[in-house]
Amino acid sequence: MSDKSSNHANQQWGGRFSEPTDQFVAKFTASIDFDKRLYRQDISGSLAHAAMLNKVGILTDQELSDIQQGLQDIQTAIEAGEIEWSVALEDIHMNIEARLTDRIGITGKKLHTGRSRNDQIATDIRLYLRDEIDVICQEITRLQQNLANLAEQETETIMPGFTHLQTAQPVTFGHHLMAWFEMLSRDYERLQDCRKRVNISPLGAAALAGTTYPIDREFTAQQLGFSKPSENSLDSVSDRDFAIEFCSAASLIMTHLSRISEELILWTSAQFNFIELPDRFCTGSSIMPQKKNPDVPELVRGKTGRITGHLISLLTLMKSQPLAYNKDNQEDKEPLFDTVDNLKGCLRAYADMVPAIKANKESMYEAAKRGFSTATDLADYLVKKQMPFRDAHEVVGKAVAYGIAQNKDLSEMSLEELQQFSNTIEQDVFDVLTLEGSVNVRNHIGGTAPAQVKAAIERARELLASR
Amino acid sequence: MSDKSSNHANQQWGGRFSEPTDQFVAKFTASIDFDKRLYRQDISGSLAHAAMLNKVGILTDQELSDIQQGLQDIQTAIEAGEIEWSVALEDIHMNIEARLTDRIGITGKKLHTGRSRNDQIATDIRLYLRDEIDVICQEITRLQQNLANLAEQETETIMPGFTHLQTAQPVTFGHHLMAWFEMLSRDYERLQDCRKRVNISPLGAAALAGTTYPIDREFTAQQLGFSKPSENSLDSVSDRDFAIEFCSAASLIMTHLSRISEELILWTSAQFNFIELPDRFCTGSSIMPQKKNPDVPELVRGKTGRITGHLISLLTLMKSQPLAYNKDNQEDKEPLFDTVDNLKGCLRAYADMVPAIKANKESMYEAAKRGFSTATDLADYLVKKQMPFRDAHEVVGKAVAYGIAQNKDLSEMSLEELQQFSNTIEQDVFDVLTLEGSVNVRNHIGGTAPAQVKAAIERARELLASR
Amino acid sequence: MSDKSSNHANQQWGGRFSEPTDQFVAKFTASIDFDKRLYRQDISGSLAHAAMLNKVGILTDQELSDIQQGLQDIQTAIEAGEIEWSVALEDIHMNIEARLTDRIGITGKKLHTGRSRNDQIATDIRLYLRDEIDVICQEITRLQQNLANLAEQETETIMPGFTHLQTAQPVTFGHHLMAWFEMLSRDYERLQDCRKRVNISPLGAAALAGTTYPIDREFTAQQLGFSKPSENSLDSVSDRDFAIEFCSAASLIMTHLSRISEELILWTSAQFNFIELPDRFCTGSSIMPQKKNPDVPELVRGKTGRITGHLISLLTLMKSQPLAYNKDNQEDKEPLFDTVDNLKGCLRAYADMVPAIKANKESMYEAAKRGFSTATDLADYLVKKQMPFRDAHEVVGKAVAYGIAQNKDLSEMSLEELQQFSNTIEQDVFDVLTLEGSVNVRNHIGGTAPAQVKAAIERARELLASR
Amino acid sequence: MSDKSSNHANQQWGGRFSEPTDQFVAKFTASIDFDKRLYRQDISGSLAHAAMLNKVGILTDQELSDIQQGLQDIQTAIEAGEIEWSVALEDIHMNIEARLTDRIGITGKKLHTGRSRNDQIATDIRLYLRDEIDVICQEITRLQQNLANLAEQETETIMPGFTHLQTAQPVTFGHHLMAWFEMLSRDYERLQDCRKRVNISPLGAAALAGTTYPIDREFTAQQLGFSKPSENSLDSVSDRDFAIEFCSAASLIMTHLSRISEELILWTSAQFNFIELPDRFCTGSSIMPQKKNPDVPELVRGKTGRITGHLISLLTLMKSQPLAYNKDNQEDKEPLFDTVDNLKGCLRAYADMVPAIKANKESMYEAAKRGFSTATDLADYLVKKQMPFRDAHEVVGKAVAYGIAQNKDLSEMSLEELQQFSNTIEQDVFDVLTLEGSVNVRNHIGGTAPAQVKAAIERARELLASR
Repeated sequence: MSDKSSNHANQQWGGRFSEPTDQFVAKFTASIDFDKRLYRQDISGSLAHAAMLNKVGILTDQELSDIQQGLQDIQTAIEAGEIEWSVALEDIHMNIEARLTDRIGITGKKLHTGRSRNDQIATDIRLYLRDEIDVICQEITRLQQNLANLAEQETETIMPGFTHLQTAQPVTFGHHLMAWFEMLSRDYERLQDCRKRVNISPLGAAALAGTTYPIDREFTAQQLGFSKPSENSLDSVSDRDFAIEFCSAASLIMTHLSRISEELILWTSAQFNFIELPDRFCTGSSIMPQKKNPDVPELVRGKTGRITGHLISLLTLMKSQPLAYNKDNQEDKEPLFDTVDNLKGCLRAYADMVPAIKANKESMYEAAKRGFSTATDLADYLVKKQMPFRDAHEVVGKAVAYGIAQNKDLSEMSLEELQQFSNTIEQDVFDVLTLEGSVNVRNHIGGTAPAQVKAAIERARELLASR
Repeated sequence: MSDKSSNHANQQWGGRFSEPTDQFVAKFTASIDFDKRLYRQDISGSLAHAAMLNKVGILTDQELSDIQQGLQDIQTAIEAGEIEWSVALEDIHMNIEARLTDRIGITGKKLHTGRSRNDQIATDIRLYLRDEIDVICQEITRLQQNLANLAEQETETIMPGFTHLQTAQPVTFGHHLMAWFEMLSRDYERLQDCRKRVNISPLGAAALAGTTYPIDREFTAQQLGFSKPSENSLDSVSDRDFAIEFCSAASLIMTHLSRISEELILWTSAQFNFIELPDRFCTGSSIMPQKKNPDVPELVRGKTGRITGHLISLLTLMKSQPLAYNKDNQEDKEPLFDTVDNLKGCLRAYADMVPAIKANKESMYEAAKRGFSTATDLADYLVKKQMPFRDAHEVVGKAVAYGIAQNKDLSEMSLEELQQFSNTIEQDVFDVLTLEGSVNVRNHIGGTAPAQVKAAIERARELLASR
Repeated sequence: MSDKSSNHANQQWGGRFSEPTDQFVAKFTASIDFDKRLYRQDISGSLAHAAMLNKVGILTDQELSDIQQGLQDIQTAIEAGEIEWSVALEDIHMNIEARLTDRIGITGKKLHTGRSRNDQIATDIRLYLRDEIDVICQEITRLQQNLANLAEQETETIMPGFTHLQTAQPVTFGHHLMAWFEMLSRDYERLQDCRKRVNISPLGAAALAGTTYPIDREFTAQQLGFSKPSENSLDSVSDRDFAIEFCSAASLIMTHLSRISEELILWTSAQFNFIELPDRFCTGSSIMPQKKNPDVPELVRGKTGRITGHLISLLTLMKSQPLAYNKDNQEDKEPLFDTVDNLKGCLRAYADMVPAIKANKESMYEAAKRGFSTATDLADYLVKKQMPFRDAHEVVGKAVAYGIAQNKDLSEMSLEELQQFSNTIEQDVFDVLTLEGSVNVRNHIGGTAPAQVKAAIERARELLASR
Repeated sequence: MSDKSSNHANQQWGGRFSEPTDQFVAKFTASIDFDKRLYRQDISGSLAHAAMLNKVGILTDQELSDIQQGLQDIQTAIEAGEIEWSVALEDIHMNIEARLTDRIGITGKKLHTGRSRNDQIATDIRLYLRDEIDVICQEITRLQQNLANLAEQETETIMPGFTHLQTAQPVTFGHHLMAWFEMLSRDYERLQDCRKRVNISPLGAAALAGTTYPIDREFTAQQLGFSKPSENSLDSVSDRDFAIEFCSAASLIMTHLSRISEELILWTSAQFNFIELPDRFCTGSSIMPQKKNPDVPELVRGKTGRITGHLISLLTLMKSQPLAYNKDNQEDKEPLFDTVDNLKGCLRAYADMVPAIKANKESMYEAAKRGFSTATDLADYLVKKQMPFRDAHEVVGKAVAYGIAQNKDLSEMSLEELQQFSNTIEQDVFDVLTLEGSVNVRNHIGGTAPAQVKAAIERARELLASR
């Protein structure tokens, strides 16, 4: 039984009402168009509920058996596309229940004993989201594996590291890829933390206050794989923060993907030319034969707003709502479903694409050589030879000015040229002035030295293996 | 011709590409599933473009005639449900163009001369949104008419005016309804202002830089009912601020409807009991026979977040996008379409429902009498008799304290009782102490006096008539 | 030294530049006005860094000692209000470093060896946020304690439970309060989960690639109470998702508080009159002597938008940002600080206010009796006597209709009256028809029965004790 | 007098209250810390109100004169920094009124006759925002003038036009700058439209229902430069949509500036190197002597989220608020003020910076030559010679493939080389193949041809002149 506005078609609540529901209103308020996707969860929930009703003596073994058979038949029929959903039956719960009663008669009606559509929908969404989190986490893991694999190939590939999109210091491409890996690790953790709060059973909260039947909430929780029953019935039918938390985590994942996308788009531009994306992830132009557009990163970047928008939808939805269930909450599902669908799509596209990214190593290397990216190394070199930092900075500044005038990188200058600026500089300067030297010497945890990146990849693989 | 990523199925841009588009990517990046709803606009735009190409000598009369016939046939077929949309053809433009070429042969291909999918989609969305704004404005007007009609019936109906949800001063229900009217008037204005910026023709901007053909942009603008062609081709294919502005205006409308909804929900509660909503706009409960739930206001309130979310989607989408067209922009359509659909639904539901709202006048009146809502009037009365305000406030404070103790409203006290607190009080105090007196005396523009509300309704009707 | 735009006043990077920074730009881009609040964290970070530099042999014992003394003196001076912050020195790091060098000479400059302002600011914010999370969690715990205490007093207090703001079924006020408790438990958990990701040390990432010095990142992490050093230098200076995650959790807390506020505001209205808020948390009106406004709940409800807005600010900020540090990120601090400040204020106000909430028990009880809130119980009663549910519903429907006509609640009818509708009804019906009966029978985990609520409070107290 | 919660310090509403306001609550709920900036508007409003009270006979000439003198003295004192704001007096209204009464005695109290803090604050904010819109519009105009001036210098400067950040077709830098101009024109229009709705007088709405005094609302509206008095008192004190609309317009401006910023940042990268920003708008690094960071565009891009966040704050704030004034609305001011301040700062920084942008013309030109940007022109050329488009595309595709292999742009091929692909190609092909030819031929309104851009600049100047 349920408190949610119910079946417009039959006379279940006719007594108090003097006129049928307005046709437009019936359609405007129905949810079957989108909640039908919860049919599997709804049936699972009903099977667990029926088993419990049998256990506590409300349903006989025969009744239970009839309900189980009936629900299985309905699921088969749905998956065979044989069910026509009815707007008049409003939602997935009433649509399935009506079919069940059609098939097995009055026993079908008994299924709803001791529950309400309010706890039923809360159960369905939680089951749905728990399963989708697992799928999403698998896709994140696949993407991370592919990033680690690519990074492993590129631990020695030198590229410019940027701050303010200006050349800063040389880094390795492998190091950069592992930065992306780290973002996704936190995203994975956040989803796991969210999952703990999703995986709790609201079933048994009934309309809002619990039920008068001697239900066994631990039993249904266990049947459905939930970690435990929820603590408070009013909260159980009102709470949607598990969905909002998921959308927050999803917004962060998408924000991360937007950052990765931005870099991929930059790097495939003619101006950067750092990487090639595989043709099968790009499209051309019907008019401009020269075009090869990085559609996937662009579309993923564009979808960031979509997910953030859904987060805001849900936060706004819940703002100021008094307890317990209000019709407003029907609006929780579409943003959630669309978030799940798009997030999975984006992760899949990236997990598929990453292995096929091809680094233009020469182009990266040349870019790193431009822009005096080892200037910091030269200053550090002088400081280590006991020059006060301020003086060192000045020396390097002059050397850079000379380099700009001569169109020469620091590493391209001769020892004599360098010694013009300070005779503290000796032959060993070239160990740090080269890109390789600059990279190798940042050899501490988290640093860009190939040895460190390799160690980081190893730890990363252990992490993935432990999931 | 177009720069948007094009047909994956045929070989239009095969030359540069070494492999076909990934199957999943093709589906992930296709837009036909949602942009198909623009078929009418797309065909209108093509008809105008074809007429222009004929005018400037690029299409012969026969070619134009073939194209016109072909497009009309396609529109008929679409509306008869005879067209199967192809994901391989990616979007509405390519789907229609491919059908046209199937029907009329090579002439179909000429239609795309001097344009691009970039200016084509910009044109389609603008045509779509302009028409939808007109429909929405009609619904707002209908809702406002119904509010004015109801207000007219209720100009003398007294209810408590609230601040902080505490009884403040008596107002009339008609006055309250006209507050809602005012909100919607601003909403209407905002949409009209937005429409000016929507109704400009981007057609002719081509891919981004204009075209090499001698096109006549004024002609196509005029054909399509646009006020003028846009000024800059790069801007024309990049700009989506007209859609964002619309979503801003829509968010405000929904925020207004959420406020109205909140009040309707409060007022239908057992505790307020100020109004009855018609049964056909409510639903009951399959279990609790006493329930009659205000589903429509609740659902409308819930949809507020949805629209605000779409606004954020679009703002986030455009943030930091370099010019000109990027694939990100494909994500502009679904939020816009969903905003339009839901906004229209909410306005329609309200316009239908408002005439059937029934005021529980006694209940309103009783509530206004409780809470000493005329205390301000008593203070003003004393001030007008030359008592300093601070003293007047103290006098009233004492009278209220007495009233609380005696469970008597100020208007229920005898003259003798009132004179206990100040002998400045005379018989004429009852003119202001009654709810009617209190309301009648706020008799200036914008005030709650029935005479003022009637005048406001008259002005409101003139406004509506002038649209 | 740092890659963040630096000191406009001195000539640290004068060599490459031909003109001084524009005056307005200097002010526009400076952060000292708001990042000065990080002075303690900045000094703690510097102390840990200095100790490490000494440990690895870069600073002598004397130098370390000078730095320690200098920084302590500066902290004392700041807290005595003796430091005038300089916009020319741009940020907190440079302001403190300049003072240090003023005090202890060239040794002050050595402090910056092997770090950058990029990792320094990341460290400061993490230290700040970790500490604030701890304070916030304490306030949540205090609020939860107060809720549990109040709930314990009110386990037998009956009020109407609402769905759709319509009377649904009786619940206890204690049960309702524990629903709030549950919301806050999840909020607490989310903050604890977030804290794990905050409490990681970015120090040592330097500008973006790590440093050429033989730093010991584990040592500084340990000194500062971090759980471990971060894994990737590029990520460490770019990542702000810890702050976004915090703002997400804060938005949910505020959304919960907005729901609680909404109920408190409703319940203090003359129409509900369920509770009294203490006078010291309300304000009156200078004109209307009868007013007592629930300012605190209203203001808290209003602040919900503020925090959600900050969440959006940060998500938008990070969208599409390429690695590594960009100046954009300077905009991360003000939304974060304002979120922390307002969240603490709201929690404190609520934790202070809750113990003083006074239930108007009679008023609650009367409201629960109205609206046929035990109709579900009567139907369940009949079903338990083997009446098919559909028939039971019809019986109850008729009884309710009779009750509306006679203005009698179900529990006020005589047995004879009830038996008119079904002679299945017997004397024992009154056990379930009374509000007490209805409440007592919902006696399973999560249900509203006083016994269950008491057990829930006990579990709640164990939870709080375990923190 | 007012309904807003009032003076905690004095005894204005002591009668009903049994205890003073909690100290923390007093501070938590006070607004003086931020609404003090409205002092000028508050005084202007009071002066107009006082003049009206005199006109309708409520204040004597002497009283009016005393009030005028008193308020002027207070304004002088505020501007001299001689006023210490009192949290106990809560807000700007009470702070000023208390000073006025201190100075001129009981007459000061009469000023509040016939108004309330509810209409007073609404008036103040509208006056404030109207004036700020005017300042902002002036800055937009200045920025547009500077863009038009720069565009005029660069009408012949050729650069690559991008779609998908891939080279598409050549455009002129002047054309690109005028795309930015167009965005800002719409922003200006939106602010002007918003201003119409801001510039309406709520004064006289009093607490919520109007007042019992014979006020003249047309008179005060006129005195304050408002276009008219508002129509409905309830709406007047509840409505904040004028502020939300402003924040929407501001969000769009910032979104536009974020797009411009993104391009400036890209263009100053070593990889693009299209422009130089003046040194005085950039900063260097204290460690990396080679760095010159585009701080201003980065910071402006970062501030986009801030403004969008404020928009969301206000929309969330108003969602579901019942009429009329609620304390929630106190939260409207800080987001609005911060939006105004930051928007002005960003516009000013841009208006100052634009004239100093230096195009690296050679670098732009070279980039445009790479990437076969005239491929479309070659296809159009062939189509104009009657080759079916599909064939033309194939011909160009082959020529591009040849060019890639030979590392030659189309324009660098000899006629013989081109004729390999089609002997339809003749000597006149070079007129369209050169960058200049490609640009010049897009010679229709909105096209990139220098002649068109010059005409657009002329129209732009007329527009600016007409403001």
